[in-house]
Amino acid sequence: MAEISLHRPYPAAEVGRWDFETDVAVIGFGATGACAAIEAADAGAKVMLFERNSGSGGASGLSGGEIYIGGGGGTDAQRAAGFEDSTEDFTAYLKAAGGPCVDIAKCELYGREALNHYAWLKAEGVPYRGNYLPGKHIEPTDDSTLIWSGSEAAAPFCDIARPAPRGHVIQHMGWGGGRPLVDILEASARNRHVEIVVDARALALIEDEGRIVGVIMRIDNQPRFVRASKGVVLATGGFVFNDDLRRKHCPDTFKLNDPIGDKDDGSGILLGVGAGGEAIHMDQFFTTCPWTMPESHANGVFVNVHGQRFINEDCYHGRVSRCAVDQPGGKVYLLLDSAQFVQPMDFARTDIAGTGDTWEEVETELEMPQGTLSTTMAFYNAHAREGRDPLFDKRPPILMPLDQGPFVALELNFQSSYFSFFTLGGLHTSTDGEVLGRGGTPIPGLYAAGRCTSGLPAWGHGYSSGMSLADCTFFGRQAGRAAALG
Amino acid sequence: MAEISLHRPYPAAEVGRWDFETDVAVIGFGATGACAAIEAADAGAKVMLFERNSGSGGASGLSGGEIYIGGGGGTDAQRAAGFEDSTEDFTAYLKAAGGPCVDIAKCELYGREALNHYAWLKAEGVPYRGNYLPGKHIEPTDDSTLIWSGSEAAAPFCDIARPAPRGHVIQHMGWGGGRPLVDILEASARNRHVEIVVDARALALIEDEGRIVGVIMRIDNQPRFVRASKGVVLATGGFVFNDDLRRKHCPDTFKLNDPIGDKDDGSGILLGVGAGGEAIHMDQFFTTCPWTMPESHANGVFVNVHGQRFINEDCYHGRVSRCAVDQPGGKVYLLLDSAQFVQPMDFARTDIAGTGDTWEEVETELEMPQGTLSTTMAFYNAHAREGRDPLFDKRPPILMPLDQGPFVALELNFQSSYFSFFTLGGLHTSTDGEVLGRGGTPIPGLYAAGRCTSGLPAWGHGYSSGMSLADCTFFGRQAGRAAALG
Repeated sequence: MAEISLHRPYPAAEVGRWDFETDVAVIGFGATGACAAIEAADAGAKVMLFERNSGSGGASGLSGGEIYIGGGGGTDAQRAAGFEDSTEDFTAYLKAAGGPCVDIAKCELYGREALNHYAWLKAEGVPYRGNYLPGKHIEPTDDSTLIWSGSEAAAPFCDIARPAPRGHVIQHMGWGGGRPLVDILEASARNRHVEIVVDARALALIEDEGRIVGVIMRIDNQPRFVRASKGVVLATGGFVFNDDLRRKHCPDTFKLNDPIGDKDDGSGILLGVGAGGEAIHMDQFFTTCPWTMPESHANGVFVNVHGQRFINEDCYHGRVSRCAVDQPGGKVYLLLDSAQFVQPMDFARTDIAGTGDTWEEVETELEMPQGTLSTTMAFYNAHAREGRDPLFDKRPPILMPLDQGPFVALELNFQSSYFSFFTLGGLHTSTDGEVLGRGGTPIPGLYAAGRCTSGLPAWGHGYSSGMSLADCTFFGRQAGRAAALG
Repeated sequence: MAEISLHRPYPAAEVGRWDFETDVAVIGFGATGACAAIEAADAGAKVMLFERNSGSGGASGLSGGEIYIGGGGGTDAQRAAGFEDSTEDFTAYLKAAGGPCVDIAKCELYGREALNHYAWLKAEGVPYRGNYLPGKHIEPTDDSTLIWSGSEAAAPFCDIARPAPRGHVIQHMGWGGGRPLVDILEASARNRHVEIVVDARALALIEDEGRIVGVIMRIDNQPRFVRASKGVVLATGGFVFNDDLRRKHCPDTFKLNDPIGDKDDGSGILLGVGAGGEAIHMDQFFTTCPWTMPESHANGVFVNVHGQRFINEDCYHGRVSRCAVDQPGGKVYLLLDSAQFVQPMDFARTDIAGTGDTWEEVETELEMPQGTLSTTMAFYNAHAREGRDPLFDKRPPILMPLDQGPFVALELNFQSSYFSFFTLGGLHTSTDGEVLGRGGTPIPGLYAAGRCTSGLPAWGHGYSSGMSLADCTFFGRQAGRAAALG
């Protein structure tokens, strides 16, 4: 009897008995899996949806429920707030955000289709209040819809695409909109009579002459053989909880200590690679630390241990954080003056590393050589008073002099401060969610979407909030439909 | 009939006729393949060695023929020059050079065995003059043996391991010792009656019930079936000439324009992954630009487009170059004063971007904001006069003030200047050169070494000259022996 392994499909010829028979099997019940199941069912397929936990959720359920949407002249929320977001600008931003890892075809397709996707989400029952919340927010603390959730208004992105806010958040009071988002998608899937099996973990794909025809699931401590005549959709998330994969592919994440996810162990990536797929951009990861909370801290200046600035701090908090983690010495400092400083949130685990009535005193407290941080701040303040940042092109209103002492340096230490992170690399897929083989042709019967693939949020330095859920929900639908239509 | 593909082993059951039969088949005739063939033959195996070009060489043949060797109290050349290099220091340096991508087991084994390997190379006929050439050299321009070829004496490495020079160069007048090194190894292989077949390109591995039992080679425009009863050794080099793989795994290399290699298209990596292996650290690459030539330029200071320093310039030229390529803006500047500046080599394609009687004038010519580069240089010079670099811990004798005007800024532009590069990621292998499957167990019959694997030179920021050839020759031997002994 063949071995049951994540790393190699099990031969269909050796399946003695099929425990379940369906058209499409979806593995993973976060937003990706739910959307795949809904679309597959709408395309006429019988669908089974398997989840290793006892209920839906996944990393999506832990998220803010924010989806990156724009283009086509703008959503209702964008237009009501005066932002006419063209498809060209929206797509250009998506491409810039993908950096060297960009998947052009995915950006262009989603660039054209995002408004239709938004309409679809609403039709499924996802509520949006429709209003715009100005300012710098990680997630709205009320039930607002539209926020700036990326680096749209910051250099260099603002010179590449006309800025618009594009983070669309489910109407939900406070943080954590991901849970109700998944609940709504779950209800939609159940309404379509998708058969949901929980406490079921994928063990192996099943192959018949090069085509994926099913999957072996561990249910009640037994391997169960699921025939999926039209295809299997992997929607299993990233690999942030797989230390072995991180060590081999993404070792810089070991600088950090706060993985976000829900059993994201890369099993779908392994299944896909074992079936002939290719895992790409596996070194990419998202990270952020909540340095913009309280909001006045968004007006601070970052320096590395050499007292050098390294980024225009008006970028998205995740881009600033990702660039911070590139800096030497295991930490960076957020500099604030008395007009901006308030006590940071406990959960950020950021400590005051130095204070002073002058920046020279702060420099001394941080044991930096004389003329480093103080020179940086003198230069910064002189230009900020003129409304410009000749080094990094930070722009008003975030750009402001920090000259009202006493001054504070908060230490953001990669090991001890709160730096959440998750992985972005994964299977190489077509815009239809087909898992592409290493020769570039699709593996028949195998589909994937969400963070077990490399998609819209391909590049850690370009991530914007809502990009991953946009990718999960939209390309989850693509994969489900393609699987159902075979 | 099964498809012949790099991406999937061909079933042995479908082989109609074996065109060749051998114990061990080695693919690729650079230093790795030659060493594998020699050891396999010495272990009693019948060996065939296939090369896609018309003769031996590979990337090794284009190299300087420098091998990173130390430990055990020092080689003859090290001891003669007064360097007692302990195994502990040597191994600690190897590990530090591997950074987050380090393969501890390979560092420890090579750390213990490097002196024996050196003796083996000499026994094979590789000549070493045995002398030490002080100073900063990319390769000796005479026939000297021992040079500083890494960042051993520079921070932070000098605080991790007691420094010693460890680059051992074949006795050969001038640059290009790689060619005679491969010639000697080729003669050794021929003396062992290794059967060498050139103009032969690997098309597919051949598998029999999970074991690799041969390889299909394209010879005379025909697929030829080679039975290798004991194993196949992949020694095919990296993937610097495979744009598709670079785009998927190592897109930062598209900043640069000067790949080094010889048809290194990643075919061995693809063969190994297709057989169940795992390609790791695929984002890592080596790069260097010849900024230390002329040698006085090693005393220069680097700044990025913001006028900030970013590295202690006494590090290995490749580490400095790799950190340079991390800088924003597509270029960096090498700052020199009149005491250090001489006309750079034409092939470096570095232009003078600014000059001035003061650093302020240079700053203005570079269109940098007032008080950036000039402040950096005032700070640097003030401390250099005191013999210290409080920011990056650069050390004498490289550390010296640059205060004798007129001054020059050379532009090292990633796209237009000469930045050579090659890839470092590849198959995950054991210290015996076994290709490890994605579950961590070896794939029976499949071995690999050199740049189609991730080995000693795992991390681009830690590379030192001679590390790749050390890895190729030593782990090539390991793989050949392991294959022969089955």
